[in-house]
Amino acid sequence: MDEILTRTLDSLPSYETREKSPPPPESSSLEFIQFYRSLDKSQRPAFLAKLSSDFGVDHKCVAELAANVMDSQKRDISTVLQAEDRLRYCLTPRYKVLLNHISRVEGGVKFLVDLKADVIEFLASKTNDSPHIRDLNGTLKSMLSEWFSVGLLSLERVTWKSPCELLQKISQYEAVHPVRNWTDIKHRVGPYRRCYVFTHGAMPGEPLVVLHVALKEEISDNIQTIVREFSSLDSVEDINRVNAAVFYSISSTQPGLQGVELGNYLIKRVVRELQGEFPHLNQFSSLSPIPGFTNWLLSLLNEQRKEGPSNRILSDMEFMDIEEITGGRAYETMQKLLSTNEWVSSERLVKALEPALMRLCAWYLYGEKHRGYALNPVANFHLQNGATMWRLNWQADTSPRGLSASCGMMVNYRYFLQDTSPNSGRYLRTKEIEASDQIRNLVLQFQKASKL
Amino acid sequence: MDEILTRTLDSLPSYETREKSPPPPESSSLEFIQFYRSLDKSQRPAFLAKLSSDFGVDHKCVAELAANVMDSQKRDISTVLQAEDRLRYCLTPRYKVLLNHISRVEGGVKFLVDLKADVIEFLASKTNDSPHIRDLNGTLKSMLSEWFSVGLLSLERVTWKSPCELLQKISQYEAVHPVRNWTDIKHRVGPYRRCYVFTHGAMPGEPLVVLHVALKEEISDNIQTIVREFSSLDSVEDINRVNAAVFYSISSTQPGLQGVELGNYLIKRVVRELQGEFPHLNQFSSLSPIPGFTNWLLSLLNEQRKEGPSNRILSDMEFMDIEEITGGRAYETMQKLLSTNEWVSSERLVKALEPALMRLCAWYLYGEKHRGYALNPVANFHLQNGATMWRLNWQADTSPRGLSASCGMMVNYRYFLQDTSPNSGRYLRTKEIEASDQIRNLVLQFQKASKL
Amino acid sequence: MDEILTRTLDSLPSYETREKSPPPPESSSLEFIQFYRSLDKSQRPAFLAKLSSDFGVDHKCVAELAANVMDSQKRDISTVLQAEDRLRYCLTPRYKVLLNHISRVEGGVKFLVDLKADVIEFLASKTNDSPHIRDLNGTLKSMLSEWFSVGLLSLERVTWKSPCELLQKISQYEAVHPVRNWTDIKHRVGPYRRCYVFTHGAMPGEPLVVLHVALKEEISDNIQTIVREFSSLDSVEDINRVNAAVFYSISSTQPGLQGVELGNYLIKRVVRELQGEFPHLNQFSSLSPIPGFTNWLLSLLNEQRKEGPSNRILSDMEFMDIEEITGGRAYETMQKLLSTNEWVSSERLVKALEPALMRLCAWYLYGEKHRGYALNPVANFHLQNGATMWRLNWQADTSPRGLSASCGMMVNYRYFLQDTSPNSGRYLRTKEIEASDQIRNLVLQFQKASKL
Amino acid sequence: MDEILTRTLDSLPSYETREKSPPPPESSSLEFIQFYRSLDKSQRPAFLAKLSSDFGVDHKCVAELAANVMDSQKRDISTVLQAEDRLRYCLTPRYKVLLNHISRVEGGVKFLVDLKADVIEFLASKTNDSPHIRDLNGTLKSMLSEWFSVGLLSLERVTWKSPCELLQKISQYEAVHPVRNWTDIKHRVGPYRRCYVFTHGAMPGEPLVVLHVALKEEISDNIQTIVREFSSLDSVEDINRVNAAVFYSISSTQPGLQGVELGNYLIKRVVRELQGEFPHLNQFSSLSPIPGFTNWLLSLLNEQRKEGPSNRILSDMEFMDIEEITGGRAYETMQKLLSTNEWVSSERLVKALEPALMRLCAWYLYGEKHRGYALNPVANFHLQNGATMWRLNWQADTSPRGLSASCGMMVNYRYFLQDTSPNSGRYLRTKEIEASDQIRNLVLQFQKASKL
Repeated sequence: MDEILTRTLDSLPSYETREKSPPPPESSSLEFIQFYRSLDKSQRPAFLAKLSSDFGVDHKCVAELAANVMDSQKRDISTVLQAEDRLRYCLTPRYKVLLNHISRVEGGVKFLVDLKADVIEFLASKTNDSPHIRDLNGTLKSMLSEWFSVGLLSLERVTWKSPCELLQKISQYEAVHPVRNWTDIKHRVGPYRRCYVFTHGAMPGEPLVVLHVALKEEISDNIQTIVREFSSLDSVEDINRVNAAVFYSISSTQPGLQGVELGNYLIKRVVRELQGEFPHLNQFSSLSPIPGFTNWLLSLLNEQRKEGPSNRILSDMEFMDIEEITGGRAYETMQKLLSTNEWVSSERLVKALEPALMRLCAWYLYGEKHRGYALNPVANFHLQNGATMWRLNWQADTSPRGLSASCGMMVNYRYFLQDTSPNSGRYLRTKEIEASDQIRNLVLQFQKASKL
Repeated sequence: MDEILTRTLDSLPSYETREKSPPPPESSSLEFIQFYRSLDKSQRPAFLAKLSSDFGVDHKCVAELAANVMDSQKRDISTVLQAEDRLRYCLTPRYKVLLNHISRVEGGVKFLVDLKADVIEFLASKTNDSPHIRDLNGTLKSMLSEWFSVGLLSLERVTWKSPCELLQKISQYEAVHPVRNWTDIKHRVGPYRRCYVFTHGAMPGEPLVVLHVALKEEISDNIQTIVREFSSLDSVEDINRVNAAVFYSISSTQPGLQGVELGNYLIKRVVRELQGEFPHLNQFSSLSPIPGFTNWLLSLLNEQRKEGPSNRILSDMEFMDIEEITGGRAYETMQKLLSTNEWVSSERLVKALEPALMRLCAWYLYGEKHRGYALNPVANFHLQNGATMWRLNWQADTSPRGLSASCGMMVNYRYFLQDTSPNSGRYLRTKEIEASDQIRNLVLQFQKASKL
Repeated sequence: MDEILTRTLDSLPSYETREKSPPPPESSSLEFIQFYRSLDKSQRPAFLAKLSSDFGVDHKCVAELAANVMDSQKRDISTVLQAEDRLRYCLTPRYKVLLNHISRVEGGVKFLVDLKADVIEFLASKTNDSPHIRDLNGTLKSMLSEWFSVGLLSLERVTWKSPCELLQKISQYEAVHPVRNWTDIKHRVGPYRRCYVFTHGAMPGEPLVVLHVALKEEISDNIQTIVREFSSLDSVEDINRVNAAVFYSISSTQPGLQGVELGNYLIKRVVRELQGEFPHLNQFSSLSPIPGFTNWLLSLLNEQRKEGPSNRILSDMEFMDIEEITGGRAYETMQKLLSTNEWVSSERLVKALEPALMRLCAWYLYGEKHRGYALNPVANFHLQNGATMWRLNWQADTSPRGLSASCGMMVNYRYFLQDTSPNSGRYLRTKEIEASDQIRNLVLQFQKASKL
Repeated sequence: MDEILTRTLDSLPSYETREKSPPPPESSSLEFIQFYRSLDKSQRPAFLAKLSSDFGVDHKCVAELAANVMDSQKRDISTVLQAEDRLRYCLTPRYKVLLNHISRVEGGVKFLVDLKADVIEFLASKTNDSPHIRDLNGTLKSMLSEWFSVGLLSLERVTWKSPCELLQKISQYEAVHPVRNWTDIKHRVGPYRRCYVFTHGAMPGEPLVVLHVALKEEISDNIQTIVREFSSLDSVEDINRVNAAVFYSISSTQPGLQGVELGNYLIKRVVRELQGEFPHLNQFSSLSPIPGFTNWLLSLLNEQRKEGPSNRILSDMEFMDIEEITGGRAYETMQKLLSTNEWVSSERLVKALEPALMRLCAWYLYGEKHRGYALNPVANFHLQNGATMWRLNWQADTSPRGLSASCGMMVNYRYFLQDTSPNSGRYLRTKEIEASDQIRNLVLQFQKASKL
């Protein structure tokens, strides 16, 4: 292990000779790739630890050059700039040069994306989260951000005539509303549907991020009408029935590109594409899942139970209603029902729970925060893009998956094209969430009911 | 001017918020592009001066953070790394963020390539070579190097079925042996010829570097047999007559990509491509011009004349021969003849001059240096790639162009595939030139004759 | 019904004005297509009957012009040719002109292919086999033969990158060895496999005939090693292990193109394609099913039983062996066993039956005839192409399907490239079957055993 | 010569065995092609004579089968149809089978197109116009008509990104307004221009018929504004300035496809294509040359001179005007002036001649006939397509070419989409020309002036 690192990393050029140094032979990069791939998953953290600590920045050199920079302060600007440039060069980890060379061999970029995925996994699982690994993570991220910047991505529309390879991958990557079979995927690229991907020259045939769009007469409030009820595959699209573009699924496919903004840019490009195809189209919205709501609510109920009955979650009326319907104690019953999704089979319960779940969910989306931004990652994604939290939909996804995630609710994040740019800026600066009256009212109701 | 700079550049994020900052709206990048393009060439240096000096690195901040780094030396590694990372961030010129955003809009990469070409021009013409501009130049170069790294380039073979747009550009960019008309270009992509280009996803339809190859029975010693004598356009290639691949022209098309290695990689990729097509093919060589030789020789003659007759250039025999043939004074006559290319019409003169011009030219290629590397830029390019200076060819290009440049001589740089990688390394480290016996002998003769 | 026929067919031009007549408007062809498609399957025979009888040849006109031709016999050649030309024109059914126009509208050719499939079906089922319908059938066949002549077909290699649409159709059309799922089809276009189709410009995206090829070290004697045992999808083909191309499935996809030779030409084109890819490849063979053998044998056994025990099918030894193994009466038992495929589970029975079934099957293939040609349609196809009946393989397809069809046997028809053209001619003229020694010996054994 | 004909043609199958006959080996077709191509142009007529006379229809057989058909008249329909079918088969020239086989080998269709071109040339030049050759011509024409029927043609839009091969061919085929250089052709596929071709699967890369369209604010009355005055190549089309599509050049490229309707279908397809691109576009018109007018007028003048001065061509006023301006005798002077195109340099003459030339040209187009149809071939083409003779334009093409052909006039044939189908039918049936008021008035003036 040490040997390959020493061999592939030791002979990096000095500042003076950096422009005159030949690149290492390709075989060196290929050897590194092969070696890493041959490592067992359990051996990799140690390898990456060594790589990032022993072949990173030369701290002694940095300290010396930092001193130079300080000394140069009173000298002419040319000297200052020179000192800074040397320091900048010295602050580049040695392994970055190797990573750069790797990116140039065939399959090299894909290798680095996969390496980055490993690093993310090790950091997340605390297998290895030394400061050096975090540095490596940052270096990789900034490199990948450069290579996967939008100017280098190609937008591709996927149809039934697209390569099988691509369609199979899209089926397999579709995480939001799983593709069940080939008729399913055929419909998702059929009439009144669009499917777009970004691809990248260095990873041919590999979709990086996939966006599924439904073309509708109005913004959908239910996912089953999109992924289960299809137009006939032969039907010809009636342009007059296309008033709304509903983004009903967006999936990233490369864990290693986490943190590299792709989805945001894909949505923007697709909007432009659709406007070109349907000049009169002017409603753009997601129909998004709310992962985590049910779990959040269950913890809340748990807390409640522990702290004794209170009125924070249900109003008195609701509380009594539920006890009457179920014949049990409201919070315990709710907890049980929500865990099993059984409540949906009782029409009375569904009705009784609707107002409470709607306002709780609105609060979850709007009021629960992580470092000041929306806790729910899907909400955070669309808000960062500048969308408006527009409409919460009751019984929008009654599949077991949808019930388990969010008691069957889904939410539309609407893209008002004029506003997305200012919205995005405001959200990122002030963390203020742009929301519709429906959402605001539900939040207000929650706040009243829960006396928050 | 100030206004647009302030508007597009001022609000760059702090280290803490760098990940949470929304990208500026695309319109901002587009505005910058449009503004710069609208500037007259004469206004651009001032604009770039302002951009690079007022929106570069914050030196005060660098000095502070450099102090922090020094202070952190005795602290734990985590603190050190953190301090270094902040310093690294601070050393990034503010305009780099803008340039990054520009690269993401349509046509942005091409804009930056053209901007870089301007910077190079201003530096070369001394219109503006402030340290700040040199910094901007370095920043742009490192950015372009990333984007144009080999993993992101596509190799394309150009044929008569390629888009007209592409073939026209190739015709127009061919600087080495100009394409005269459409039959010419048709031949250059016809039987026993190959033409390859690198293209890049962010500049579609634009060839970045073009390599013309002739497939020959042996390594050519004459360019006219390549660019003037063609096989019939209908002839079918006889694989048994393809023993040598002769690179007879390589042109970069984007001045802004100067310094980004493309030609080297293109040659390597093409070699692999050709080996795939002709498994038995094993001779690879350039047939290269020698720009600058005639001028170099004329200065030498001038010097000689001023310092009185000596024997440094011609041997006594040669001296007398030439005086006899021309009836004039040898050096003066030579000077006149070489300036006008008239000497080639006299068979006797051609014969008489051959030994002297051959050894002088060998010396020019092998012995004349710039910062220790070969002075002749074509030689330097191929030697850096690891080629061997293999054969100097008399009367290899008797066109007026060839005569004016190098008294009609051309040189083969041969690629011995096993040796290119070590050769390249040795040349770059030790500046030692790998040359064949023919070249070495000619150099030796020169050294004897000129008593150097 | 009458109305649309009269409208679309009545106004066809006379001989004199045939060149000066405008084509009917496209709408007329489209109307005909739509009308026919709207007809219920049960209504179509009557419609086609009317079309073919009332809008066919004008017999009175033919008789008159036939008389003219006879009268012209003693006149000059110009008069003869003219009379013949008029007669020829008059012999063209009026509906042919309509069919021609239909072929010109979008989707028209596909419509005629489907119409032809209907006609074939009605003829086969005796729903309608009037002489007029047979004439219509002949007219359609000659038209389709022209349009689907080889010069107008495109050979396409199918890979995992081919359009999904195409791969799905190929999966669905594969009749010989059904494709079970997507991994299956991925393997069939993966390493050591080839899949080729003919497509036609007038029916874009529609494969007309599909050929599956396995690349093997030797000619396969077993189908499971081809369709169940795959190389890894990532494995790289080792050219040295590719000595034999085994055509293991060929499917026509358009019932309406029955009788139009496509398979034959596809095999020839694929052979050329493979020779281009693997210059040393020189063994070409099918691995073919033997549909109908089990049924043929069962009838034979039935006959035997009725006529009392005899020795025509089994030798005395075999007869006794089987009675001993099964404890029942040999022919009855065999009949039962063969109907249920149970015999394969007894190793002893498998061994005992092998010689008899092999020689019976050889005879079935070689000796059983229909109008003098091989009765088995697969045999007849390959023999017409000029292949040699090369090797009968025991337990070559032990799937239920293979057992039911041919007691698990399969046969190789081998293509000796030099001989296919003469073989084909001889077979078609003399009906003589080209067979290997193995086949001939088995047939001889059968003849001896059965005292034929 | 006889030998190759006998070898490739003799063994054609009988009616009974026609379905069971193997196709001749491909080598036979290839041999025929090679042999014919090797023949000198002067040897070909004899070869074709032999082919068409000795390997055509078997007249004796035809006579016998004609007798059979007559005998069958009183028998059942099945017998009649059978007799007719045999007769039809017998009426097929033997060489047709060979031609069919040729069409199946690579390059075979192109060979037959070229062969047809030879036949047309020999017939036109009377080198060989025997009845047999005419029969061969007819057979080839009907075969090519089948293969080049619209369902088998692909519409392709040509742009600057199209293959160079294609653009070069289009440049070279452009007969109407010759392409002068590469900038020229770039403009013809640039903004506000469209260029479409039909291609055919059997002749890849070969445009069969080319249509050039200019997108204009109104229907053009002048060709120079189309082929000399261009928008900038970078300009973006303003959809609001596209009101009229002007077909300013249509060229067939294959002499052998003369008589096969392609141009008509291309125009119709292009109209549909343009309507898809510009939904509001509703003016479609040609801007067409009038080849032959000047020559026709010169003969008329010649006649006039011989028959002594009369008033049929010029009115008295015009006659005097011209004599006054030129100082010579009107008709002689006109004859001279028109032969040399000198008259255009005199503004007075141009003015004086306008009314006469306009009404003469209108008459030439509208009144001069060949077999009842318009004598002018371009007029006949557009009238057959159903266009209206819409506007005669004075000084529409003042190039030497335009002056020599038609005294600088051009004509618009306008396509009123609703009317083209009925117009086409009426013209072909009744030979009546659909013309605008302008044309009709000019014709009336001519009739008055010339007392016809």
